[in-house]
Parts: sequence; C-alpha cells; structure tokens
Amino acid sequence: MRKSARRCAVLAVCLIALLGAGAGPLQAEDDPLPSWNEGSTKQSIIDFVTSVTEEGAPDYVEPKDRIATFDNDGTLWVEQPIYTQFVFAMDEVKRQANQHPEWRDKEPFKSAIDGDLKKVAAMGQKGMLEIIAATHSGMTTVEFNESVSDWLKIAKHPRFKKLYTDLVYQPMLELLDYLRANGFKTFIVSGGGVEFMRNFTEQTYQIPPQQVIGSSGVTQYQMWDSSPVLIKQPKVLFVDDGPGKPEGINHFIGKHPIFAFGNSDGDKEMLEWTAFCQRLCFMGLVHHTDGAREYAYDRESSVGKLDKALDEAVAKGWTVVDMKNDWKTIFPPEAAP
Amino acid sequence: MRKSARRCAVLAVCLIALLGAGAGPLQAEDDPLPSWNEGSTKQSIIDFVTSVTEEGAPDYVEPKDRIATFDNDGTLWVEQPIYTQFVFAMDEVKRQANQHPEWRDKEPFKSAIDGDLKKVAAMGQKGMLEIIAATHSGMTTVEFNESVSDWLKIAKHPRFKKLYTDLVYQPMLELLDYLRANGFKTFIVSGGGVEFMRNFTEQTYQIPPQQVIGSSGVTQYQMWDSSPVLIKQPKVLFVDDGPGKPEGINHFIGKHPIFAFGNSDGDKEMLEWTAFCQRLCFMGLVHHTDGAREYAYDRESSVGKLDKALDEAVAKGWTVVDMKNDWKTIFPPEAAP
Repeated sequence: MRKSARRCAVLAVCLIALLGAGAGPLQAEDDPLPSWNEGSTKQSIIDFVTSVTEEGAPDYVEPKDRIATFDNDGTLWVEQPIYTQFVFAMDEVKRQANQHPEWRDKEPFKSAIDGDLKKVAAMGQKGMLEIIAATHSGMTTVEFNESVSDWLKIAKHPRFKKLYTDLVYQPMLELLDYLRANGFKTFIVSGGGVEFMRNFTEQTYQIPPQQVIGSSGVTQYQMWDSSPVLIKQPKVLFVDDGPGKPEGINHFIGKHPIFAFGNSDGDKEMLEWTAFCQRLCFMGLVHHTDGAREYAYDRESSVGKLDKALDEAVAKGWTVVDMKNDWKTIFPPEAAP
Repeated sequence: MRKSARRCAVLAVCLIALLGAGAGPLQAEDDPLPSWNEGSTKQSIIDFVTSVTEEGAPDYVEPKDRIATFDNDGTLWVEQPIYTQFVFAMDEVKRQANQHPEWRDKEPFKSAIDGDLKKVAAMGQKGMLEIIAATHSGMTTVEFNESVSDWLKIAKHPRFKKLYTDLVYQPMLELLDYLRANGFKTFIVSGGGVEFMRNFTEQTYQIPPQQVIGSSGVTQYQMWDSSPVLIKQPKVLFVDDGPGKPEGINHFIGKHPIFAFGNSDGDKEMLEWTAFCQRLCFMGLVHHTDGAREYAYDRESSVGKLDKALDEAVAKGWTVVDMKNDWKTIFPPEAAP
C-alpha cells in the first residue's frame, strides 16, 4: 500500500493547494477588473454580479437568464472622429470607383473619392447612408466579408495609428470576461451593420456571430452555376438603433437582458427596456471624459451624442463610467512583437 | 497513513468503475439514438458526428463551428392536419371575437368563428395570413406570449388527443441531445412565427430563444405609463421559409451550418445552402411514411409538401428518414402520472 499512499499524499497536496487558492485573501491577480480604478463605478458592477449569481440570494438569476447586451461603437471600441464602418465605406468608394465611373461626378461619391470627409459629413445622414448602401450591396455575403476582413487587417486610425481592432477598451474586455466567467451570455446590440461587425467580434471580444445584433440589409438567395449565394441588396431590413434596440433584442434574443451597457442617446431605449426587467438589473453608460487618452464628448457631439440618456441615467441612478477617473488604462497593452 | 491509504483504495475503485464503464463493450444504454432502428439512416448520422468531432481526423470541425439547424413543423413536431400555429390563430379568432364585432360578417373571420376549418383552408394562403396577422398583432409581446403559453397548456390535437408539445418526435429529441453532447449548437430555422415558437422551444427541445429563428412581424417600441412595451404590428418583417431560410441563417446566426434537417420543400434552400459548407456536412429530410403511427404524406400534401426537395435529396445522396422503418417510436413515452 505504500505506493498508493504516496499517490494519495500527492493528490492531497494538490487539493490543499487548490482549496488554498480559493480561500486565501484577495490577491491582485484575483481582481476580475484590474483596469478599473477602485470606486463606486467598479463596485456597482461587482455588487450586481455578486447579487445575481449567489445561489439562494434574493436576487439570484439562473444562468440561462443572465443576458448582457453591449452597444459597440463608443462602448466597446473608439467611435471618434467618425464611426469605423463609415471609414471603411469611404475607402470602399475609392476601391470600387473604377467599376463606377458615374460616381466621379455625383455626390456624395465625388467627395468620398476625393477623401473629403468634411464635405461628406456636411451632407448629413442622407449622404452617409447613400455611401453605405452603395458600398454594402451588389456583392455576395462572402465577397463582402472578404473586403471587410482585408480592410481591418490594414486600415489604421488617423490619430492613434493603430488597427481599429486594437482600439477596443481594455476595461470593457475585462468586463465581458468577468460576466462570462459568471455565467452570463454576452451580446452586442449595435446600430452598426451586423455583417460588418461579425468580421471581428469573435476574435476581438470572444462574442460569436450569433450573439451579434445590428442593423442589416436585405439579402437575396440565388443560384450561381449551381452554387447558392446570398446577394446583398441596397435595401434596409432592420435598423438596430434607438427604439430599434429593444425591438432587435426581442427579435434576435427573445429574452429580457438584466445587464446593458451603452454610451449614447442611441442606447437610451435599450437601457430603459433593460431597467424594466422586473428584477435586479444593471444599466451602464460609458461617458467619454478623457480628451488626453481618448476623446471627451457628450451633449454636442454629432458622433455618439450623449444628452437625454445621460440625464436619465443620473435621474435614475444608473452607473455612469467617468472614463478619465474610472479607467486605469484605455487600450489593451501592446502585443509582444 | 492507513486512513489515507483506505481513502485512496476507495478512489481507485471508483476510477476503475468509471474507466470500466467507458472501455467495456457497447451497452444498450450507450446508444445515443435508442429510438432509431439500426440501418443506413442511423449510421449516416453517427458516421457524420464521429467524423467531425474526432480530433486530428481530416474532417474535424472545431466546436464553435458545429452549427446544426432544424426545421420545426413536420421535422420536430406534428404538422398535420394543419400547422399548430394556425390552430392557435383560429382559436384566437374565437377568443377575441367579442372585441371585434366586425368579424362576424367578414371572411375569413366569419368561418373561423364558426370553426369551419375547411372553408378557411379553401380561401388559401391569403385567408390564413389574414387570420395570423389579425390575431398576432395589436397587443404587447408580453400579452401575446401569455396567450400562446396559456393555449399550449390546454389545446389538444384532434386525432391524438394530446397537448401539441407532447407530439414531438422522440427520435429527433434524441438527435438534438446527441448533437449537443458532441459540442453542436442546435438552432431552429422554421417558417413558423418566432415569437410563437419561443413559448415552448426551451422547455420542449432545450433550445433557448436566441437559437430560434422564424418568421416575424414588426414590433414597435412605446412608453405606456412610463413602462416600455413592444407592440406587435400587423406587418411582416421577415419570412423565414424557402429562400428565406438561408437568408435567416445568415441574418441571425452569421455562420454556415454543417448539419441541417427538414421535411418539406420549404427546407430545400436551407439544405442546399448547408450542402455548400465547403467541408463535410450533413443534410437530412424526414419523410412522413407512417400513416398508422403518425401521417403519410409528401408530393400532394398542402401542408408540408415534399416534392422537389425529395428528388434533390435522392439525387444528391442526402439522408432521407423513412419514418415507418427508421423510427422505433414516434412520440415520447407518457409522462408518469
């Protein structure tokens, strides 16, 4: 029996080590949100997660109902000076210009080809939508995905000179991980195009395509040389912004979130809908207050305007992240070369 | 050391017992599909699942890409003599008739109130859609869900005299379990209304709402006495049938299925789309050949017509379930009283 006794001793040591790791005092490495400064914002998140995951507690929620929804632009990654998808669309106009000689004399394409972002922006939403519709249709879904993923590999942000997928918020990545480690299902609910986002959300946020909800266009099933394809049409199917967010949550998820995070007035209805969850729920807003490390903007911004939702958050006691003071770091550390 | 040695002996016995269970000859209880008769149909399923889950094998597929899609009506539960959702809609006409005096003299509602299914059916798809639109709109999503779930608790099938949720196919429940046990994500992709189905799919099939794709109407976000509601509108948003199935798969899942099961021509495009998965994939059809235990119908049926898809399945070597010969039992055993 001496050999088995020795094996047993090894097993016992392992067990003690395992138990010890859980029972000891909280170490720095045990902090699930290391990029968040200590304070009421961080505490509100931890308190909520603790309350809904503690079995037997009055606010306990079963794992299957732990639904968390996140806006994307300005909540999970940078949206200034202009939405990333729109930069892609402007670049696509240039790339596709040879196939569209008619664009050279026609606005908003002419200005887009000239790279005159200000002039395009001055044409307002109509001009932007025309560019999105023209560059996001007339091809198969496979072709579209290839051009998005090729673009994401090389396009760089004008100020930070980094890939857009590197300009995600480290504190929010930790929050997504923390929620998932506590049995939450994390979803993106964004005004951005669902097919655009799905080209990076699984790798960047560990959120699989089926948990990404966004605006979408109509596609049409066709047979090309006995191969089925889906052709993207220049026709809007669903706008997942403002009141479209709760509509989209109902349409795609079919369950009520108990946790939602946004950063602009486009998230107001999603947060209101979440607040009506009939149990303990969490509503959060990222307030961009850090012009030095990222951007500072709210009520007057044409991109990511935060005005009514900020008033409502303050009035109702929702969590408002003060980026400058609540976040230790903004972006993930540089990947080792 | 004697005490720890004894504990170790106990542990060793347990381990041997565990290993023995795995290493012994295949027992009846190890069969993942006990309601399927042995034969090429059952074998084609097991061969496929083995091929894509065996690490290092040429056809191995990572768990995150193991997407399986199932039609609902006629594939997972009975669809004869008429789609369950339509029976619900007919009953709703009667239930709501008092609030709609105008229905008493107006077809197709008049015949629906009289319970004259044949007359309604004779009015064709237009009449059916009018009844669905009228009974599935003008209320909040919460109210609609209540009426569906109340109805499902009491409505019984005219022939089998059982709740509709008891008329699911036992072999298909086993198949869903078998796929999930092998790391697949199972989705429903049905022409039926997504909000109707979500009232039973989680309990009946262990498929959560966010994995149910179906036809849908527009909803509108409104505030009622400071409470947010979604009002169902009499307007179609998306028809998830025929070519709508691959379109819906792209819209909701954003990944290509490697496994799909249907039973009618409405599933043809979903199966064609799946067959184009660029790796090993599985396409299956339930052929209703069992008039004694269930129903026998295919090319001439107005409900669940199976004609072109059957020809294509035969031509392309897809798996066709012969219900009469391939299934040992049709429905789950009676729950103990």
